[in-house]
Order: sequence, then structure tokens, then C-alpha cells
Amino acid sequence: MPDRTLLLSTPELRPFLPMLYVAWADGRLDPNDEAAVRAHVASQPWLKPAARIALEAWLDGAHPPSPSELSRVRRVLTETAGTLAPAARSSLVALGSALAAGSRPSADTTRALNELEGVLGASEDAVALDLAPQTEHEIENPFEHASFDPRAMQKLLDGKNADVRANVRAFLDDPSRRAPYGLPKERHRAMVNGWLAELSARGFGALGYPKVTTDRADLGGFMAAFETLAMGDLSLLVKYGVQFGLFGGSIYFLGTERHHRLLADVASLKLPGCFAMSEVGHGSNVADLETTATYDHATGEIVIHTPREAARKDWIGGAAETAQLATVFAALEVGGEKHGIHAFLVPVRDPKGELLPGVRAGDAGHKMGLNGVDNGRLWFDHVRIPRDSMLNRFASITAEGTYESEISSPGKRFFAMLGTLVGGRVSVASGAVTASKVALAIAIRYATRRRQFGATHAPETLLLSYPTHQRRLLPALATAYAHSFALEALRDEYIATPSGSDTRALEAHAAGLKADTDVFTTFEGDNTVLLQLVARNLLGAYSARFTRGGVRALAEMLAERATVVVRQKNPLTTRLTDVAHLRDRNFQRAAFAYRASTLLGEAARRMKKRIDAGADPQAVLLDVQEHLVALAEADVEARVMNAFANAVGGADDALRPELSRLCDLHALSTLEARAAWFVEDGYFEPPKIRAIRKLVPVLFAEIAPSARALVDAFGIPDACLAAPIAFGDPATM
Amino acid sequence: MPDRTLLLSTPELRPFLPMLYVAWADGRLDPNDEAAVRAHVASQPWLKPAARIALEAWLDGAHPPSPSELSRVRRVLTETAGTLAPAARSSLVALGSALAAGSRPSADTTRALNELEGVLGASEDAVALDLAPQTEHEIENPFEHASFDPRAMQKLLDGKNADVRANVRAFLDDPSRRAPYGLPKERHRAMVNGWLAELSARGFGALGYPKVTTDRADLGGFMAAFETLAMGDLSLLVKYGVQFGLFGGSIYFLGTERHHRLLADVASLKLPGCFAMSEVGHGSNVADLETTATYDHATGEIVIHTPREAARKDWIGGAAETAQLATVFAALEVGGEKHGIHAFLVPVRDPKGELLPGVRAGDAGHKMGLNGVDNGRLWFDHVRIPRDSMLNRFASITAEGTYESEISSPGKRFFAMLGTLVGGRVSVASGAVTASKVALAIAIRYATRRRQFGATHAPETLLLSYPTHQRRLLPALATAYAHSFALEALRDEYIATPSGSDTRALEAHAAGLKADTDVFTTFEGDNTVLLQLVARNLLGAYSARFTRGGVRALAEMLAERATVVVRQKNPLTTRLTDVAHLRDRNFQRAAFAYRASTLLGEAARRMKKRIDAGADPQAVLLDVQEHLVALAEADVEARVMNAFANAVGGADDALRPELSRLCDLHALSTLEARAAWFVEDGYFEPPKIRAIRKLVPVLFAEIAPSARALVDAFGIPDACLAAPIAFGDPATM
Repeated sequence: MPDRTLLLSTPELRPFLPMLYVAWADGRLDPNDEAAVRAHVASQPWLKPAARIALEAWLDGAHPPSPSELSRVRRVLTETAGTLAPAARSSLVALGSALAAGSRPSADTTRALNELEGVLGASEDAVALDLAPQTEHEIENPFEHASFDPRAMQKLLDGKNADVRANVRAFLDDPSRRAPYGLPKERHRAMVNGWLAELSARGFGALGYPKVTTDRADLGGFMAAFETLAMGDLSLLVKYGVQFGLFGGSIYFLGTERHHRLLADVASLKLPGCFAMSEVGHGSNVADLETTATYDHATGEIVIHTPREAARKDWIGGAAETAQLATVFAALEVGGEKHGIHAFLVPVRDPKGELLPGVRAGDAGHKMGLNGVDNGRLWFDHVRIPRDSMLNRFASITAEGTYESEISSPGKRFFAMLGTLVGGRVSVASGAVTASKVALAIAIRYATRRRQFGATHAPETLLLSYPTHQRRLLPALATAYAHSFALEALRDEYIATPSGSDTRALEAHAAGLKADTDVFTTFEGDNTVLLQLVARNLLGAYSARFTRGGVRALAEMLAERATVVVRQKNPLTTRLTDVAHLRDRNFQRAAFAYRASTLLGEAARRMKKRIDAGADPQAVLLDVQEHLVALAEADVEARVMNAFANAVGGADDALRPELSRLCDLHALSTLEARAAWFVEDGYFEPPKIRAIRKLVPVLFAEIAPSARALVDAFGIPDACLAAPIAFGDPATM
Repeated sequence: MPDRTLLLSTPELRPFLPMLYVAWADGRLDPNDEAAVRAHVASQPWLKPAARIALEAWLDGAHPPSPSELSRVRRVLTETAGTLAPAARSSLVALGSALAAGSRPSADTTRALNELEGVLGASEDAVALDLAPQTEHEIENPFEHASFDPRAMQKLLDGKNADVRANVRAFLDDPSRRAPYGLPKERHRAMVNGWLAELSARGFGALGYPKVTTDRADLGGFMAAFETLAMGDLSLLVKYGVQFGLFGGSIYFLGTERHHRLLADVASLKLPGCFAMSEVGHGSNVADLETTATYDHATGEIVIHTPREAARKDWIGGAAETAQLATVFAALEVGGEKHGIHAFLVPVRDPKGELLPGVRAGDAGHKMGLNGVDNGRLWFDHVRIPRDSMLNRFASITAEGTYESEISSPGKRFFAMLGTLVGGRVSVASGAVTASKVALAIAIRYATRRRQFGATHAPETLLLSYPTHQRRLLPALATAYAHSFALEALRDEYIATPSGSDTRALEAHAAGLKADTDVFTTFEGDNTVLLQLVARNLLGAYSARFTRGGVRALAEMLAERATVVVRQKNPLTTRLTDVAHLRDRNFQRAAFAYRASTLLGEAARRMKKRIDAGADPQAVLLDVQEHLVALAEADVEARVMNAFANAVGGADDALRPELSRLCDLHALSTLEARAAWFVEDGYFEPPKIRAIRKLVPVLFAEIAPSARALVDAFGIPDACLAAPIAFGDPATM
């Protein structure tokens, strides 16, 4: 017997492997095939003698190759097939060419392969099925059939400031700008500081201070940069947000011209800082911070002091290592009189990074995430700063040592101060949506390639074919789109709000969206606390009437609520179950609005009843707390729904159908989740909610084919998809 | 002016600080008080002259101490008060005594203090309120008023095997048996291996193999040890489970006498091993594992081989470093015939830890958690093992080279094999509940001490006073109790099941409870996959009829369902809203059972309809997947509800009232979460679900006073409450 293994070791014969394997695939060589192939091989004058002998050894019908020999050929084929693009293994000829050991096959070989294919009449399907049944490329993938161009969708999602986003993407699309998992925190921090310096050098730090560091009003660009940075290392996002947003922003928004002079150094990172608000004893309840700022008129200085352990500043980004200047929030006392919380610029380290006298710092240490951020603690021991270091946009201490403010009410002053920080909350919400987009992209890319379980003798089932997996991912995908549009609208509202105007509604909207995009649950305010802020704002109109009291006010309120109910709940609507109705945007919007307004009316009525009965207002708030949180959620959901509906209405014809499906899914899966409320209220009768339940999986099926394109449209650089499962290595699927 | 600071620096005067501070607390010394104190000081012959002068300097009504001087005294007092037990600062005398600079005050001092207190008439309340208003001990804590003894409750929860649990607790209650957060994985692994050796030396490894390593049937003890270990470092739990449960258990349950000889070395850790089931390509779908085990009759050996990258064993605990012997699951082929997945003992390292020829190992690297476990990968390159190394309880290869099994169906054989591993799933579920108990203990201890927000001039509100926080923690607490009892019942069922009997129902119950206790979502089977296993078991009875087909079977089924409905749904029950009815255990159990049986009947009907219409069975399963998962959840919930109800019924009088409240909360908050289903079905009318919604917060208020005692009853050693917030340092609250 000639040595059949020569077939595998002779480079010029490797292109023939697929053909020979198929010829023998059923365990016997058809005599006609044998004769035809022999004749064909004999007619190839370019084959060297040794190669010819090796080839003919595989054409001996009396001595078929053993299963093991065939198996070794098969292994070579599947290994090669696994590394190829689908086109490169779409036929025996193509696969054979690819096997030509790294070089292109000769013209002779290609011709011979084409002829042999004709001789054998081998079908491509046989190869695809037999050689690589487990590699997913061979099988029709039902989840890569988008009806639209992902780049056009990305353009829509990017909205304004596409240039800033493109620059940030280019910055992030570099594997060296990704910290390896498990990197020690010291090295991670150094890495992040380096990236931050690069961002600063590229001008991303200066964006946040229009008219000071830049002539342009570019808060939108600053927010777009922040939002896009959330695709990458979140430690960098936080450091960027702390230095240029919180620290620089506090100087920009709470300070006056004498402080604005510092902003060039903030933007260039020559002056690294931190935002020292939270204390270990008071995180959410900022009004009760305990750090003291006592004015000493004898020296014209303010004394910053940590009176007890609970007053230490804690979890402050930048405090552990890098910050040289801190914006410190502390309770101001002037001439023995307390004026509540104000912000002060307190130097904490010299330019060499040495702590200044009276300042003690600690390190928050290793964390479950964000180890590239040097979160830390600060204690102040009677640290003296000049009077001018008070950020004095809303209040100041005069040269005569008296406290002055244009806003007479301490409460109003406090909220005016906090109101300037609303941009941070909007940005954190945007960053949270971006982070959820990255997670969705990874999960959906995997779910559209990974197979597990299925019928015997068939490819296993793709994860995204399972309804439970569709439910896990597709409503979240629809909601990521919804939040994108809602946040764009909120950013526009924020940027368009004139400085100094009443921002309470805007703050509530920001708080609500931040709470609704729950990735960053505790950043920039605990979500449960934020939802109560939303509810209190909604009740604002009512509470004014509470204080005025009186039957007339209550009657007004109830009349208003009754109007809403009469206008929106009617027997026809509560019973309609046809698909066209359920997919009608007006029906969807009305349902969200009805829930929000009903909960508002009920909350107002409940509170009024209790207050009229003489209950303590604080006790009333506790009593209706769950109701208020539900109200706030409903209000945010209605706003998000409206923003999504508006975006669908304004989209191009090429994108509108897909966005409309997504909007339907977002609307109906949200209504499904609130089914109990709607049925109990009577707004939906049971058959209607059953119709919604039935429609949601239909929407899954409609959207699934575009799932991959819908996450591609997020435009996430490959380097940011940090999980290997995002890349579907065929060897491991 | 004499130097008043002597008061602080003179040890013998420190006991007088509280008294003097209170005397001056309102900024002026009452002339009568001044005279009385002066006279009193003059009459103390034991006071040294310098001390006397310093003391009198504080009694000069014409020269009151400055706010700063008073403030310094106050600081000393609050710092000391913060370190004392409430009793030690319950009066000025007690506080003064505690200030005697580390030594007990002299008899003279104590007498003087008592007299002074009489002179000043200073009230204790004044001190408590003024000196340490922020330390929580001073304020009545509404959440520490349990109606029962936590030790008695612990005894009930511990059930059988209290001795094993006590030993494990003693082992864990040692801070050195807790890895510091962020420890490099190499050091963490070494630490865990050391603890594992200690557990083994104490006999905890041998518990799992009754009649082999121990005479006693002590699977219950083994499971109790595992459950309790989950209070500590979860890496140790996993290593313990892998070595003694999965690895040793596979030898014990899948092997025969010739393999059981190894168990002594497994128990002593002389033979460390691993359980190599999962492959990167197949985690959930074990039947399609690709590692091959090919019998070579010429040598009497089995060849273990990894045919492609997707077949590498992955995430195998112990594979990266420690395992010397692996239980490898692979597809067996004997004489060219395939027999499906079997288990084989494959040596992978020599006793020195060097990899054996043909075996390659990789490290899964740094993980988000469990870094003390050396998870790894294994590849086999035609590794030969003797025929006897096949674990042959269910099938073997004879000396003649033929495959033999008493179970003729390959499917049945596969499930018989997997069935033996059900103990692992039960244990993982128990471990998950323990882990959730630790989390609950930390969160509830914190929530019963941490205050945030509140009315002005009053202590801030405790977190557990907020309804949103009650909802976050208390239903979870009730459910932890429910799961404890349900798992105890399941363990009893498991231990009582005779070897070799049909364990399908038990497996389904274990799968369901494992999926319901969702802390360990992917361990021992992904939860979504497990819930489908539950559903398929439930449909088992029906599916037998499907194959027989026929109108009679369907009629039978529907008749059965109709009986359930008629028996349980009646207009009275659907409308009853009184509290006694809602808290009636029979009503609660009936509601859970109704939902489970209704979903079962519906699922059976839907599947039957589709199969009768000629649909492919695989497509039908996909089609009803969400329904099946809902059915499985409902079934598990009904089982858990029954177990909890039984436990309440069997509890002592001293514990029953509290358990009954918890059971009400568990039942009603679960029904509330399923409100939409019940209202749509018509089993509840809207007023009834509204009554349930109203009752749940009432239960919060009933249970909250016992919250702390209910987590104390878990008996978690202090060293296991790893989060500092569990210990309520008054300095930071």
C-alpha cells in the first residue's frame, strides 16, 4: 500500500483534500467516480510523480481509507474551514484553494479542481453539512437580516455632536486604552491618569466651560463626550466626570470670575481636583452635612473642619491620590450664625502631591469595579482658607465680615446651588444608557451566534431563538433606544435653559431619567431618593394649594383629575384588542399618560386627606412613600414614551419602520409589566391585557432579525466590547 | 485668668468634666449653682492645689468659658461617650467615672461626683440629649423588639445536624478564615487550600460517603456542612463542594467498589481531584459533550481525546492547579459504536503536581468573585486510561471488549447517571439561601441603625422605617425563611430516597428550588434551563397521554383540570377581602396551588393542540417555552409555600406567631407580585388584590420590630459578616 498520509503532507495536494473526502464520505468510492477521477489525475501533466502516487492511493476502491485516515482528513478540513469566511468555503473549489498552504493555488490546480468538481458532481451542501456542521457561518443566521442600514441608524442616534462622538470613538478604539481585567489598582489608576491627560491634551476637558476656556457654547459637546466615553473603561469616565464635570463644573457654576481664572488649569489638568460633597454620615441627605466652615473675621479666613468621624468626606473620586484642590461642601457659620451648606475651594495637596498641613487623606482601597479611580477620604483639622475661596455665586462674605445673599430663603439658596449640578445627573444617566448598550451589544452578538440544545441531527438552536432569551434581551434593547431619545431631549432642554432660571422641573426630569436608567444606581443620588424628588416636584402644584387649604382648592384638584379620567377611560378603549389599536401610538401614549395622571391625583388626594386629619407632614410623606415612588416611575415612563414616539415620528422613511417596531415593543412590554395596575384600575379589561401579552412575542419575532444591526448601530468600537463572547470565535461556539 | 485647659490635662479632674459641661451648657452658670459647687470643691480635702485652682477657674460666673473652650470639653465627652456601652453613660456619675483616664476613679472622686450631682440636680436626659444626640444607642430603636428568643429560632432553623453546623460555625468564626478583599488570586487560592486541608483533617470530607469512609449514613451532615460553609468565604464552599461533593460524589455514586477504594484519599485530600463535565461549547447541553472516549480493545485501554477547541473542558474547579485525578465526562465509543456520555477517571497530574503526558491545562484567570478557586481548562491528546477507569455503576466494558449496561435505553442511562448528581443541586440551592441570609443580615443590621433624612431638630429616620426599604428587605427575609424550610424538606426527601429508585420528581424539585433561590444563577445548571426541566417533569403525566393520543386522554385531562377549577374558584373566595381570610393559611395554599394547576392544564392543552395540528415537537417546546417557565415557577412557589406552612404548623408556641407573620408576608407579597395573573384569570377580583396590597405594608410594620432578631437567628458568626456596615460603628452612623 502506498503511504496515504502523503496526501496531508504534500502541499500541492492539499487543495484536493475536500474533493477526495467527499468522494469517500459515504465509506465507498463509486466505481464510476473512481474511473473518472483516475482519468482526470492521469491527464494532469503538472503533477509530480510522488504526488501522483499519493493521490492514486486514495482512488483504490478495493482498499478504502480507514475511518481514522478519513477522520484525519476531516480534521484538517474542519480546522481550515473554521478559520475561513463563509465565502471562502462556499464550494469545494473555494475550500480547496484555501487549503493551498498559505499561498494561492496555481492556475493548474484551480483548473484541475474545477474539472474534478464537474466530474464528481459534488454538491456544496454536502460539504457544508458534513464538514463543519457546528460552525455557525455555514448555517443561515436568522438574526442578521436588518431592514435598514446600521450606519444610518447610528447617525440618527448620534444626533448633534457627531464629530465629538467620532473623536471619542477613535480614542477608545485602541486595545491599549482598555485595562486588563484584574489589573492591580495602582497600575490601573496610573493608566487611567495617562488617558485622562491625553483627553485633556485633545481639548476634551475645556468643552465644559463655554465663554471661559472656549468661545463656543459647547455643553452639548461635553455631554456627548461623556456619554460616548462610557463605551470604554468606566474608570476613565468617572475620572473625566469628576475632574471636568464635578470639580470644574462646581467652579464654573458656583463660582464667580475670580474662580473662573482657575478653569484653564482645570481643563489642562495642571490643576487636578476633586468634589468633596458626600460624608460617611450623610450621603443622600446633603443638607445635613457636618463639615464646618467657620468664618474668622480677625484673619479674614474661613476655617474648614471635620468635627467628628461621621463628617469625614468619603468615596471622593481623586481624593486618595491626585487632587490638589477640593471643592468642599460644608456648613457655614459667620459671626456665630449658621447659614447652611456652601461650597469652598480648599487646597489639599501641593503641586508635588504632598498633603498640606491640617489635611488628612485615606484611600477607599480596592473596589468591585472602578479600580482606576482613586476614591478616598478627607479629614480637615481647622484648615484655614481665604475668604475669597468661598464659591460665591449665590452667597458671599463681605470684607466687613457679614454674610450676604440675593436669595433670602436658606432653602431656596440650597436648592439653587444644587440645581447647578443637574448637568452631572443628566450626564450620568447618559453614561448609564451607554454602558447598558455595551452590555446589550455583547449579549446580543453572543445570542445571535451561540447555539445550545435542539433537535437531534440538526444544528443546535441559537440562544436568541428561545422566547425566554428574547424576553431577556429585546425589551431591554427597545428601552435602550427609548432612553437614548429621551436623554437627547433632556440634554436639549438642559442646554436651552437660561442660566438663573427655575430649574426645578428640569432637575426632576433629570432625577427621573437617572433613576430610570438604573445601571448606575447610586452615582449622583440613590435612585429611590431621586424618585421621591420627582414625585415631590409633581406634587408641587398641589402642595401650594395644600398650604392655602380650603374646599375650593380641593374641588379644583378633583375636578381636574375627573376631567382626565372622563376624557381617557371609555368602555370602547378598555376593551379594544385588535393589533392595529394596540400598535397605535396614540393609544400607547394615552395609556402611559393616564397612569401617571391617575397616580398623581390619587397621591394628592391621599396626602390631602391625611394632612387635613392633622397628621405630621413628615409622617404623611413616609406613609405615601411607595405611592410616590410609583407615581414618579409612571411619570418618567410617560416622558420616555413621548420622547420615543416623537423620535419615531421624526425619523427618515428608511429607519421609521424598525424604530416603530421597537417603540411598540417598548410601549407594550412596559404596559404588560404594569398589567396588574391597569386591570385593577379598569383601564384595561382582562381580554385587552391578554391581547398585549400575545402581541409582545410577535414583536420579538419581528425585531429579532434586526437584533444584530440594532446593536451595531450603537457604533461601539471593537476594542470596547471587552467580553470575548462578543466575537463568536467559531472554535468555541 | 488661670489656665482652664488644665481641666482637660489633669487626670484627676477628668471625672468632673461632664458635670462642669452641664453646669455651663446654657452659656451661663447659675449663681446658686456656682456657690454650691464652690463650697463643694472647698470641702474636698483630697484635691491637690493645682487641681483645685483649675477647677475653680471653671466656676467664675464673671468669666464664662468661650464657646471654643466648651467645645473642646464637649469633644472629649462625645469621643468618650461614643466608645461606651449605653449603661456606662447613663448618668453624669457613670460618664465621669468612665473618664477617669483608664483607671477606676478613687472612692473620694466617686463620692464627690455623687454629691455634686445632688447639688446641681443635673438630669440624665440633658446629658444624653446634649452629649451624643447622633449616637444611635441613646435613641429608642423600634427594630429591636423581637417577640421571641433568637436562639430558639436558630435551633429550629438548624434542624437536624445542629452539631455539624456548630462545628462549621466555630471553624468560620475566625477572622483569619476570611480572605481580605482584593487579595491576589494566587494568595487567595493558597489560603483556601489551607482551610480545605483543615476541614478535611476535621473529618468534614469523609461525611459524604456513608458506608465507605464512615459507618454512619451521614449525607445529611455533609449537606448541613456545605450549607453552613456558605456563611464564609464562598471560594472555600466551592472547593469543598468540588472535592468532596462533585469529584468524590461522582466516584461514590457513579463508580463501583473498585473505585470506592479511592474515597479515603479523596476525603483526606491526599488525592485532590476535579469534575470535568462542562466544555466551552457545551455547558447546559451535557448530552452533546464532544470529548471522546474511544475503547481500544488491542490494549484494553480507553483513549480520552479533545477533538476540537469547543470540546475543551472549561471552568473546571481545581483543574488549573490542584487536581491530580479528574472525573471526565466523554462520549464513549466501543467497537465503532457510540454509546453516549459516560464518566471516566483520568489522572491529570502526578503527586508533585506536574501535568501528565497528553494533558494540557489552562487557568481561567482572575474572576469577579471566587478567586480562591483555581478554575481551569483541560485538553486531552489521546490520553490512555485502563478500561477499569470507567465509572461503571450503570454501564461497563467487558474484558471481551463489549459494552454492557443493565439499562437498555441510552436516554434512560444518561438520566440515571445525571440523577445521581442531584445532591449537588440540592446543596447548591442550600448554599445560595445561606449566602442570601448573610446579605440580609448585613443589610438589615445596617437598616436598623443607619439614619438618613427626617424632620428638623429630631433624629434622622432609620432606613428600615422607610416603606420602600421595608419592601426591599422584608419580603426577601420572609422568603429566606421559606426557602430554608423548603430545602430542609427537600434534603429529607433526598436522604430518604432509596438508591436506584426513580428520582425524576426529586430532580425536578431540586432543579426548581435551585432556580428559585437565584443567588447562584448559573452554578449547577442555568436557572432558565432548570425551570424547563421542572416543567417537563410536570408534563410527564400528560405527555404519556400525548403519545397514546386520542380523544379519551384529552377528555380525561380536561376533566381533571375542570375539577380543580370548580373546586377552587367560587364567587365568594374571589371577592373576600377581610384580613382573617387573607391571613388564612388554607386560602394562601389554595391560591398557590390553583395557579400551578391552572398553568399546568393550560400548558398541556396548548401543547396538545399544536401536536395534534402536526407541529414539530421541538418547535412546540420553543413555542410554549415562556408558559413552561411560568408553570415551573408557579409549581416551585406552591411547594415552597407548603413547606413554609408546614413548618409554621409544627413550630413551638413561642416561635409560631412570628413565623406565622413571616409566612403571611411571604405568601401575600408573592401573590401581590402575581396579581396580574390572578386578576386576569378571575381568581381574584380587583378589590381582593387591593386588599392584599393594603395588607402587605401592615405586615411590614408587624415584622420590622423583629427584623434584627430574625437575622440574628441565622446564627452567622461575626467574622462572616464581612461588610463593616453590619457593625454600625456609631462614629459613622
